Amino acid sequence: MKFYTSTNEIPEEMLKGIGLTYPQLTYLPETGILYNNTYNKKTVPIISGGGSGHEPAHVGYVGSGMLAAAVTGPLFVPPKAKNILKAIRQVNSGKGVFVIIKNFEADLKEFNEAIKEARNEGIDVRYIVSHDDISVNAYNFHKRHRGVAGTILLHKILGAFAKEGGRIDEIEQLALSLSPEIYTLGVALAPVHFPHQKTSFVLAEDEVSFGIGIHGEPGYRVEKFEDSERIAVELVNKLKAEINWQKKANKNYILLVNGLGSTTLMELYSFQYDVMRLLELEGLSIKFFKVGNLMTSCDMSGISLTLCSVKDPKWLDYLNAPTGAFAW
Amino acid sequence: MKFYTSTNEIPEEMLKGIGLTYPQLTYLPETGILYNNTYNKKTVPIISGGGSGHEPAHVGYVGSGMLAAAVTGPLFVPPKAKNILKAIRQVNSGKGVFVIIKNFEADLKEFNEAIKEARNEGIDVRYIVSHDDISVNAYNFHKRHRGVAGTILLHKILGAFAKEGGRIDEIEQLALSLSPEIYTLGVALAPVHFPHQKTSFVLAEDEVSFGIGIHGEPGYRVEKFEDSERIAVELVNKLKAEINWQKKANKNYILLVNGLGSTTLMELYSFQYDVMRLLELEGLSIKFFKVGNLMTSCDMSGISLTLCSVKDPKWLDYLNAPTGAFAW
Repeated sequence: MKFYTSTNEIPEEMLKGIGLTYPQLTYLPETGILYNNTYNKKTVPIISGGGSGHEPAHVGYVGSGMLAAAVTGPLFVPPKAKNILKAIRQVNSGKGVFVIIKNFEADLKEFNEAIKEARNEGIDVRYIVSHDDISVNAYNFHKRHRGVAGTILLHKILGAFAKEGGRIDEIEQLALSLSPEIYTLGVALAPVHFPHQKTSFVLAEDEVSFGIGIHGEPGYRVEKFEDSERIAVELVNKLKAEINWQKKANKNYILLVNGLGSTTLMELYSFQYDVMRLLELEGLSIKFFKVGNLMTSCDMSGISLTLCSVKDPKWLDYLNAPTGAFAW
Repeated sequence: MKFYTSTNEIPEEMLKGIGLTYPQLTYLPETGILYNNTYNKKTVPIISGGGSGHEPAHVGYVGSGMLAAAVTGPLFVPPKAKNILKAIRQVNSGKGVFVIIKNFEADLKEFNEAIKEARNEGIDVRYIVSHDDISVNAYNFHKRHRGVAGTILLHKILGAFAKEGGRIDEIEQLALSLSPEIYTLGVALAPVHFPHQKTSFVLAEDEVSFGIGIHGEPGYRVEKFEDSERIAVELVNKLKAEINWQKKANKNYILLVNGLGSTTLMELYSFQYDVMRLLELEGLSIKFFKVGNLMTSCDMSGISLTLCSVKDPKWLDYLNAPTGAFAW
């Protein structure tokens, strides 16, 4: 049994609960907009958002040094353009507004509409579309490049840069430099179990699915589960093929080990151990780690692995900078 | 499918993974002992521990201003006395060692044996047995008073007090004053799903069980799930009957909303909203909140609610003091 009772509406109770818990966060009822009420208006506000069901993304990343606001939609359904526009207006203080969008067709449609309208109103809106997922579509071998867990590196690094006074055009440049370095691949151990929610794939108790998406999109291959190490080998090898780190001089990387919902910390840290041993053999040096349920898919059981090359050592300073966001 | 492959051994991979992730934490292989290698030896070290499967407890609470070390056993099985003794020796620097034990028979046996031996070696060991669970045994109506999620208030408050220079006898006094104020009650929405692990209760998809323990111990009543609010009403009413806040002048409380493993943040914050509304009607003022998967029972779906009266305003300072523990 799950607490969710409806999947067609903005999860008001959750958002009100968050607003009651953290005095620095204000929820605007029936809009999905949660904003940082202590936000420094002399800096460029960064906003992000998407469907709900990915908590702590994006609400948990609202706070000083990260997002100025997050816009949340119904379960796995992006927020409406009118609410995104409202969020842009809410945080705008004349310095421009920077928007981080996850690469999904439905999200792009709503965000683009809102950005177009905000620009018509004279607000200097810039944006980045995060597309860190490197899984391949089994049907046509095209890359899907969805925006998944690696998106939170954009939230944190751009947020810290904005806090220290980065201008809107500088933030845009940093986003364009950072985003292509972020690579993520996920694996499901069990699909979402969720009232009223159809999952688009089925897995037997002893199977895993590589390359799944964060809305229950099916992966590129299903196989029998062997052990954590086997999964680590598959994800690391696929990331290596995509990133080509063996051909690059820079061996410094950022690592995220993300749980997809009901994966326990015992599993995440055991997996982290397997990944670390493999990356050591590859000669990579991990300069920043993060392990936890960072961007989930309801109660899906599974893990995603994100690697990002440290092209600029300042990125590490931004990652290590303090933030008021409750889930970082 | 879950990553766990064995339930009879200390989860070495997890503990090594944590040691690799956080430079300030060192894992002593094959002992279950994870300690803070930056610990200030002029202060009294606090240690805790228990079976694994409750992550982030206790490993996530090791760090400056909380635990100096945690000792972890196999899944739901307490660590052996010899490893607890080794942990006491590891952190001892002549100021005494304070131990926080969760009230379970098997835990008490191992911890008592270790404490007795450490005292024989001349180490001034003091301890507190946390017993915050107020669920009632349906068979004899005796209180069970197990040590559950509220235990982390002892970790944090005593840890912060020790860091600021509290002596061993002062820490003992604070523990004796704080521990009886902590009250917790839990509810399961689904039992643990875990290879090789028998759960001691079964729940239908539409049922919930009130008063369950963190090792899958059955609760005091099973009923049909209605909604989050109904669960909040049951837990708040039972806590009220036990704490008797209506008869007390002090209306200031600490609140923990704890997920038992696979409960999503969407559920936790929706529940938090329901609880806050009820406590407001009761005239209570919540001075400190914490919402998250704080002390889990593997991947059990469920929630526990902890309330603690703020007898001394300093407790809030200790809760708000900075800590290096990764899971606080």
